[in-house]
Amino acid sequence: MDEDDRTTDHRITPEEDGVHHSWNNEISPVCTIEPGEVVEFSCRDATNGQIDADSTVADLAGLDIEQVHALTGPVAIQGAAPGDVLTIEILDISHQGWGYTLVLPGEMEHGLLAEEFPEPMLHIWNLDDGVARFVDGIEVPIDPFPGILGVAPAESGSFETFPPLPTGGNIDIKHLTPGSTAYLPVDVEDALFSIGDCHAAQGDGEVCGTGIEAPMSVTCRFDVETGRSTDAPQFETDGPFTPSGRDERMFGTTGVGDDLYTASADAVRAMVEHLHEERGLAREQAYVLCSAAVDLKINQIVNAPNWTVSAYLPERVFQTE
Amino acid sequence: MDEDDRTTDHRITPEEDGVHHSWNNEISPVCTIEPGEVVEFSCRDATNGQIDADSTVADLAGLDIEQVHALTGPVAIQGAAPGDVLTIEILDISHQGWGYTLVLPGEMEHGLLAEEFPEPMLHIWNLDDGVARFVDGIEVPIDPFPGILGVAPAESGSFETFPPLPTGGNIDIKHLTPGSTAYLPVDVEDALFSIGDCHAAQGDGEVCGTGIEAPMSVTCRFDVETGRSTDAPQFETDGPFTPSGRDERMFGTTGVGDDLYTASADAVRAMVEHLHEERGLAREQAYVLCSAAVDLKINQIVNAPNWTVSAYLPERVFQTE
Repeated sequence: MDEDDRTTDHRITPEEDGVHHSWNNEISPVCTIEPGEVVEFSCRDATNGQIDADSTVADLAGLDIEQVHALTGPVAIQGAAPGDVLTIEILDISHQGWGYTLVLPGEMEHGLLAEEFPEPMLHIWNLDDGVARFVDGIEVPIDPFPGILGVAPAESGSFETFPPLPTGGNIDIKHLTPGSTAYLPVDVEDALFSIGDCHAAQGDGEVCGTGIEAPMSVTCRFDVETGRSTDAPQFETDGPFTPSGRDERMFGTTGVGDDLYTASADAVRAMVEHLHEERGLAREQAYVLCSAAVDLKINQIVNAPNWTVSAYLPERVFQTE
Repeated sequence: MDEDDRTTDHRITPEEDGVHHSWNNEISPVCTIEPGEVVEFSCRDATNGQIDADSTVADLAGLDIEQVHALTGPVAIQGAAPGDVLTIEILDISHQGWGYTLVLPGEMEHGLLAEEFPEPMLHIWNLDDGVARFVDGIEVPIDPFPGILGVAPAESGSFETFPPLPTGGNIDIKHLTPGSTAYLPVDVEDALFSIGDCHAAQGDGEVCGTGIEAPMSVTCRFDVETGRSTDAPQFETDGPFTPSGRDERMFGTTGVGDDLYTASADAVRAMVEHLHEERGLAREQAYVLCSAAVDLKINQIVNAPNWTVSAYLPERVFQTE
């Protein structure tokens, strides 16, 4: 396979091929490809187009949650067999100039600090010029990636797309940028790969429940490895691991405790307070900015009974000039 | 305070000032300083000198665990009062050319995969030339930091140093390198700050239970902020966030599940298998290398009920030239 050969062999679009809203190995493939081929996927935003650049928070009340997520696919990769590894090289990804971050109300809430932020929120981001503009003086660098990529599970039945599975799905690994390769365990004949829920940027953690959600087009090259197996996603990536791709100043807040989830919430809560007290953001804005730009790292998971989790804010999001 | 003024105002050594092995606000300060002053702390390794560059795994059987950790201090910072924030600028840190990573046997085990690695292990690292040499062809870049820095808790009594507390302690934040500033909540009059357990390198997670442990000297400048408060550690840092300080290739393994601890263990177990199968390391070696060089990130903590945690291996540790 010539690495420079980026001829697109197949294009899949929601308009011509439909979308699907669950993982189910009985969903018929929209396309069958050979290993080595390149596929361009047109992906709707997570809500299947219910939100656009002109939406307001009032529109969230009428959101049909059944349409989340809208996945493009599945693609059958000929010859892939259970026990193989499906290789997905992410070659290219492009957005349409806008995106959004939302916090859903009521029973659909799923943020890390859901109880503290019970009101719906919607922030529309402009994505021109390689950055996502938040408010005056605050910009988040964008590094688009597909939040969901996965293959059909062997188990019969229909599985929600919301929780990720060992076969992938809603893994939200923000480092799966162009130039990266994802490896997924093939669980059924021909793998049946689908993709969607693209994000223009996201902090490790995606703490308010959404990244910078956006419709995008993703181009991938597929291959099948028969010589090894995996029982969960693996990947190779060059990052970026910081917004600038090199060391830069970060402000950190730390959660200390005997539960990683609670420690993460404590770290994010402290970061929200920092952004409120020191940077003048409303707490609701701070929570959204954390979801788009703040990274959760597990500093240590061995000093029982108390673990350390920290939230890292890249200070360059503040345009001080 | 002139940033270039690095005159050391005080030197504290275990030989002259002793060490202590617990957090207790009744431990008398070895030194009282003014805000703005610079202190050089000589820190023993975590075991208080029981392990040296010539130790072997057989020596672990006789380890007196009561001597872990050996902390230098406490230092009283005059005028620091409960509710203030103690500011610790980390100015400089220097090692002595060697370090070790160990896995303790039996009831002292505390690694993330303790049940899978029940045998004691000791690896002595040479730290010359800015890298830690592991085995032929594998080097871990070193970025020394103090694993423990903390202040005395207000609560009366003697607290173990092993678990970190909201007042700091064994937080193992590897980004607290020279140039960083840590912020700790002052809980008692004069703060009573202590430091130790220095690491030459560590992955986020410290998964086998130890980093590259080493005796070191740490120089810090202290200040007291009265205008704000915090109830847990905070910090500012320039990293490094990758071994090279810029984007570089990483191999990732992912844990997917409804418990962050279990998902972390799954990711590390997959990384151990990767290092064994693809890089030819014994699993025990792989576990130690993960603890020194592999980072745990929380990719998402909102797609209930399954979270995503990934382990990131910087491929540059392999000297392929």
